[in-house]
Amino acid sequence: MDYYPSSIKTLIRSLARLPGIGQKTAERLAMHILQQPNEDAHRLARSIVELKEKLRLCSRCFALSDDVLCRICNDPSRESGLICVVEQPADMASIEKSGAFRGRYHVLGGVLSPMDGIGPDDIKIAELATRVEKEDVREIILATGTNVEGESTAAYIAGILAPMPVEVTRIASGVPMGGDLKYVDQVTLKRAMESRHGI
Amino acid sequence: MDYYPSSIKTLIRSLARLPGIGQKTAERLAMHILQQPNEDAHRLARSIVELKEKLRLCSRCFALSDDVLCRICNDPSRESGLICVVEQPADMASIEKSGAFRGRYHVLGGVLSPMDGIGPDDIKIAELATRVEKEDVREIILATGTNVEGESTAAYIAGILAPMPVEVTRIASGVPMGGDLKYVDQVTLKRAMESRHGI
Repeated sequence: MDYYPSSIKTLIRSLARLPGIGQKTAERLAMHILQQPNEDAHRLARSIVELKEKLRLCSRCFALSDDVLCRICNDPSRESGLICVVEQPADMASIEKSGAFRGRYHVLGGVLSPMDGIGPDDIKIAELATRVEKEDVREIILATGTNVEGESTAAYIAGILAPMPVEVTRIASGVPMGGDLKYVDQVTLKRAMESRHGI
Repeated sequence: MDYYPSSIKTLIRSLARLPGIGQKTAERLAMHILQQPNEDAHRLARSIVELKEKLRLCSRCFALSDDVLCRICNDPSRESGLICVVEQPADMASIEKSGAFRGRYHVLGGVLSPMDGIGPDDIKIAELATRVEKEDVREIILATGTNVEGESTAAYIAGILAPMPVEVTRIASGVPMGGDLKYVDQVTLKRAMESRHGI
């Protein structure tokens, strides 16, 4: 990288630390930023700084938020008796994109993972139990991942909530839409068979 | 994107303006920046601002530079009688990476392109002629692209420099190294045939 002036080298190095961005892409992006109008480059820089300064977690559901309560917790049109439990903010974004859910969320901030030393106290399980006690919650939908950690986290939470007067459900797993059966893995097929329903 | 707080939306929008970065990648990068230590995110933002503030063009060869003269123009070990003419700073970086050249550069900042309204006065051709007059230049290597614009720019510059006491050469074009002849296009093959040389 010696043929680049130091200011461009510094940017290339910072960009190459981002996921999925290698040396070549970082060089291309840096060259593009160089050719962008000043205003655009400053907007990008400012938005990075503001993201780190302004963004926090919703005090109720732990979703990403600009304020004490996130937009969904503040929205009276969202059904308050229905809480969807997800691992990470990005999962919540995916469900919102699907448009299939009009209740509220609870973001755990992780999954139980003994291998990584993450126990029940490291994620927002106690906070979920408190919400069930205090808010008028009708149903908890466990939408953690369908891998080992996600499944065991869902099972653990179901155990914690069992004594409480709330219905606990789990998102369905099965063959993805548009899926060709011959490309679907065996575990998914087995699950799809077990969860078959009348039509 | 309504499910994202506004500070993350702003960053996603800025990132998605970069080349090769779509909506999904921009979201993934924003989530990563969010989870980075504050220090890393600030370093990235700062390097963008510094790039725009500090970087300028070398007053002699118009390469990217932190200073009045770029590192190569300042380097006494580079052969001063040999100038390689390229279109853009990125081309110069590619040649430097190859390690095949120990002379100096001249960055045109574009190619002649009547379709885009770019004429001889819009790129640094007059400045190249001045260098040939004032510096003790032995050879000019024209390393513009091998497309229509690059070829005609090279031909134009060769015409301008013809009356001057300097040798003008053009980089070779032919079959790329590691190339399988059956995948090489016809124009390249024709050129490779015409430029054949004794071994």
